[in-house]
Amino acid sequence: MDKLPLVLDLSGTFVFALSGALAGARRQLDLFGVLVLSFAAGNSGGITRDLLIGAVPPGAISDWRYLGVSLLAGLITFYGSLLIVRMSNAILIFDAAGLALFAVTGSSKALAFGLNPVMATVLGMVTGIGGGMVRDVLLAEIPTVLRADLYAVAALVAAAMVVIGHMLQLPVAPVTAVALISCFLVRVVAIRRGWRLPVAKINERVDPDKDSGRS
Amino acid sequence: MDKLPLVLDLSGTFVFALSGALAGARRQLDLFGVLVLSFAAGNSGGITRDLLIGAVPPGAISDWRYLGVSLLAGLITFYGSLLIVRMSNAILIFDAAGLALFAVTGSSKALAFGLNPVMATVLGMVTGIGGGMVRDVLLAEIPTVLRADLYAVAALVAAAMVVIGHMLQLPVAPVTAVALISCFLVRVVAIRRGWRLPVAKINERVDPDKDSGRS
Amino acid sequence: MDKLPLVLDLSGTFVFALSGALAGARRQLDLFGVLVLSFAAGNSGGITRDLLIGAVPPGAISDWRYLGVSLLAGLITFYGSLLIVRMSNAILIFDAAGLALFAVTGSSKALAFGLNPVMATVLGMVTGIGGGMVRDVLLAEIPTVLRADLYAVAALVAAAMVVIGHMLQLPVAPVTAVALISCFLVRVVAIRRGWRLPVAKINERVDPDKDSGRS
Repeated sequence: MDKLPLVLDLSGTFVFALSGALAGARRQLDLFGVLVLSFAAGNSGGITRDLLIGAVPPGAISDWRYLGVSLLAGLITFYGSLLIVRMSNAILIFDAAGLALFAVTGSSKALAFGLNPVMATVLGMVTGIGGGMVRDVLLAEIPTVLRADLYAVAALVAAAMVVIGHMLQLPVAPVTAVALISCFLVRVVAIRRGWRLPVAKINERVDPDKDSGRS
Repeated sequence: MDKLPLVLDLSGTFVFALSGALAGARRQLDLFGVLVLSFAAGNSGGITRDLLIGAVPPGAISDWRYLGVSLLAGLITFYGSLLIVRMSNAILIFDAAGLALFAVTGSSKALAFGLNPVMATVLGMVTGIGGGMVRDVLLAEIPTVLRADLYAVAALVAAAMVVIGHMLQLPVAPVTAVALISCFLVRVVAIRRGWRLPVAKINERVDPDKDSGRS
Repeated sequence: MDKLPLVLDLSGTFVFALSGALAGARRQLDLFGVLVLSFAAGNSGGITRDLLIGAVPPGAISDWRYLGVSLLAGLITFYGSLLIVRMSNAILIFDAAGLALFAVTGSSKALAFGLNPVMATVLGMVTGIGGGMVRDVLLAEIPTVLRADLYAVAALVAAAMVVIGHMLQLPVAPVTAVALISCFLVRVVAIRRGWRLPVAKINERVDPDKDSGRS
């Protein structure tokens, strides 16, 4: 029972590493590039959180199992990309589970390091979305999470639940369960129904620079 | 009077967050994406400085007001983008003020953490330009500061003045004032007159790889 | 003799800074942009390693000589780009030497900070390839190392040799020499012969999303 957090964390790492490896393979990276993307997608969120709260060296650096799980996901994807591509709907579901796991473990760890409730919630979300953001930056793309269907909001919901439960001193196990299930459901329903956040309306006549990307 | 540094720092964060939000809205990010760009543009410089000098957790993580100010700027931009676009000349002026504030507070903090004068100057500049660089990297663009009109030089001038004043043990208040005004003026005049740094002359006949971006 | 590690480290920084400056000059950055690319390419690997192992402030921040060497390389490239372009084959060789130096010093430092052998090897490699990755991300490109000819593998070989030598308590000097030479040779032969790692085969008929870059 004591090892449950580690098992959950490694499971999340594995699923996110699959998403990183798949993105890398699609962009024709070589074997090493695919493995780097696996590790980056699986661990950047947690490493960022750990650097920001002062947990150095980060778990993903001091414990080799995070690397091991990431490389396993990368190798499976590289040599079995046919399988992974066919399973990509299933992977979206796994990814929703990974997001829930990371948001919960991330906000718990931030609370344990003494962060205030607001920033612990934010760091839970960062743990969940950081891996995908670094994956996309390494592929020279605008991170999907900045324009996608309620991805970050789902992580935020779970992280906020953990933090509120902590402040009200509710028992940890049921709060964790409810947070995990809520994040997972928000994300899966958002995918199914295509729910999205609104997009800014910038009128081209008003803003001739619109597409220049300069601020 | 004791709160003046914090007020200056939060003001700089707000202005930089506006620039991040505007860049995000122009690239059609959703609401969450715009808020992430606000936070990243307003706080990445300070977070980078704090990680590098060992001030962990960084101010922008331990104090929720940095987040609050950034989200406020993001929401104003998202729902009032018409207004913000019309004000964009005014924002360039505010941005010059933010740059001056960050360069001054950044080099002061680096000195307080015992860095040598040369690197304290560099970290003052990093505090000023880091937010804009992360903003542009997240939008998959080459950071504007790497090719723009004397942006970094203005920050460097202010940071160097603070450091030299510290070494000569001059009184802090007038040195700060002169540094702020100098950075602001260099930047504003550079915008008005279109002053730029020279660009490398690489002859295409000599360098067939020129446009490949490979080194 | 005591200063040998520092001299090796600064030499590696200089060569990598040349590669950064050249990449920046080719993309028409201004003088400041070229100098930033020099510093980033020469020092990001070491800074990343130091942040991850908790060596704060990183050597490249606390010791101004890393900055000095980087700026020197940047200025030489900026004002002598004709020369640098003509020497680019020689620079590839220097770069292989820099890679070997960084992989060896990086894994040694990680061991000295108590990391386990697996992750010390990985951090040696990160020290070697980190600078080039940040250089490419700043230029909004997919890092070359993710698709290039045995670049990371050469660094990995040297880092693993240092770590294995440390575990077997072999004398440091000969192990270091063998690791340096091995990395250098693997890299140079890979360049000469065009050796590459395999690339993932993703069939377009199976994967209609192939070119979308979405995972």
